Amino acid sequence: MEKKCIGIDVGGTTVKIGIFETDGTLVYKWEVPSRKEENGAYILPDVAASIRKKLNERGIPMDAVIGAGMGFPGPVQPDGYVEVCVNLGWRDLNPQKILSELLDGMPVRSGNDANVAALGEMWQGGGKGCHDIVMVTLGTGVGGGVVHDQKIVAGRHGLGGEIGHIHIREGEKETCNCGGHGCLEQVASATGIAREARRKMVAKPDASVMRAYGDAITAKDVLDAAKAGDSLALEVMDTVCYYLGWALATISMTVDPEIFVIGGGVSKAGTFLTDWIDRYYRELTPISENKGEVRLATLGNDAGIYGAARLILD
Amino acid sequence: MEKKCIGIDVGGTTVKIGIFETDGTLVYKWEVPSRKEENGAYILPDVAASIRKKLNERGIPMDAVIGAGMGFPGPVQPDGYVEVCVNLGWRDLNPQKILSELLDGMPVRSGNDANVAALGEMWQGGGKGCHDIVMVTLGTGVGGGVVHDQKIVAGRHGLGGEIGHIHIREGEKETCNCGGHGCLEQVASATGIAREARRKMVAKPDASVMRAYGDAITAKDVLDAAKAGDSLALEVMDTVCYYLGWALATISMTVDPEIFVIGGGVSKAGTFLTDWIDRYYRELTPISENKGEVRLATLGNDAGIYGAARLILD
Repeated sequence: MEKKCIGIDVGGTTVKIGIFETDGTLVYKWEVPSRKEENGAYILPDVAASIRKKLNERGIPMDAVIGAGMGFPGPVQPDGYVEVCVNLGWRDLNPQKILSELLDGMPVRSGNDANVAALGEMWQGGGKGCHDIVMVTLGTGVGGGVVHDQKIVAGRHGLGGEIGHIHIREGEKETCNCGGHGCLEQVASATGIAREARRKMVAKPDASVMRAYGDAITAKDVLDAAKAGDSLALEVMDTVCYYLGWALATISMTVDPEIFVIGGGVSKAGTFLTDWIDRYYRELTPISENKGEVRLATLGNDAGIYGAARLILD
Repeated sequence: MEKKCIGIDVGGTTVKIGIFETDGTLVYKWEVPSRKEENGAYILPDVAASIRKKLNERGIPMDAVIGAGMGFPGPVQPDGYVEVCVNLGWRDLNPQKILSELLDGMPVRSGNDANVAALGEMWQGGGKGCHDIVMVTLGTGVGGGVVHDQKIVAGRHGLGGEIGHIHIREGEKETCNCGGHGCLEQVASATGIAREARRKMVAKPDASVMRAYGDAITAKDVLDAAKAGDSLALEVMDTVCYYLGWALATISMTVDPEIFVIGGGVSKAGTFLTDWIDRYYRELTPISENKGEVRLATLGNDAGIYGAARLILD
């Protein structure tokens, strides 16, 4: 039997799991709920039991599996140790070691979920064929991952790819989750875009289709309005894309990736969004025409399981 | 005889050359002028002849030399090809291949001089013992180098470590050498600091010891005045250190190095400068207390030959 590998993406609500061929073909994927009772003590046993069951159902013997990779929402030390993972309730444990023991010593590696998603997009997504990519995930927050020479740059203190907390906007008065003022996440996350729209509607009296949504406006509403030509929504998105382009420009002058991949829910706006980001990014890096392209992510919510599976192939 | 390696730092005025033990001990160093006539065609033959002569004088046979590394002031492609190196007059050549042929096939590797200096500081300088460092060189311009896992991150288009051209300051009207407006180099290079001081003297009527220098003021004059407590000079340096700290903050959220090393002529101001940069850098990265330290470079003008020698040891 062809060797397989397993990718596990542990989220706050569900754990996504995929069985892959070593060439990156997804064989089968499923989800289990993330049981967060007792500080998330059931999560890894649930994952292990579910993997045994699915492998058994599909007639895949354990020894046909090279290993499993795992991403979770928090900082991971190089040996897999996790000091704290707020979303799962974990504290002071080594999840990769625990899962390996639960799976008869199967090799398990792990990483931060946003970093792992970047690896997935490099392997089989928007960055396929590239070895050096930077992914920016525009979701509720802004996450990111830097992949250099096909490996995650996790950083010496787990801060590699913390693109959302790049300080980018002077004069911001509100405080970011990280304690900062003016982080990229504050303006370019779904939450940030909606907030920017609310601010804009207060600051300017102009008519706008956005006003129908009031304070309940979402990033999608803003993007739809901008696509329809609403001038206030266009102003909001101009601000958002300016700061995103600026952030890519600083990253380009630091690690100069082959490509940038934009993912997350906000990226469903497609090239309307990425072309706009690209314009500012190019404007702010006049040093050379020859630089990383801006592309869309293609794996959606599966980037995490792809990247996790890829982790174990090194 | 112990194996040796050679480090070559090709500058616009002189070429610095060093013979090293493979453990990083500098055995002997010297300089030859950079003859730039005929598009710099004499530079590499001069270097090769000088290396042969010095090895001969010191009784080191060619076959005791593992190889030579070389840094030069411009972008270098992964195979060593150089499209253009303005300061030397070079265009469309492969200097490492040429030097290797001139030295009987001795292995030669090359890289951008600022990147190579970062590798030198990692090996035997301010970053000794670290594998992941980012160096910022504050000279006439601002250069930089990102070293990850003991290797230079040159970038896919040679823009890795172009720290000086990180866009950082909004509203700058003057144009940078790169064509940009608001590059770090425009405010934090020796030239930039002097310009900032001239602007400050025009903008504010306050008495200042800087006024005695008039338009001929240098970065050193500004730093000396700031150290002596001159309030206008302190304002200038506060601006400079703010933008430097901000740039380090963005780099930290991208690659999260173990340490930052500050070098170049301006860094002779010592911890007076680096402590100030560090304060802003920490202020702009509240996400974690645990992050890369800011230190001074220690190799001065020799960083280039150290790093070049280190290039060949991989």
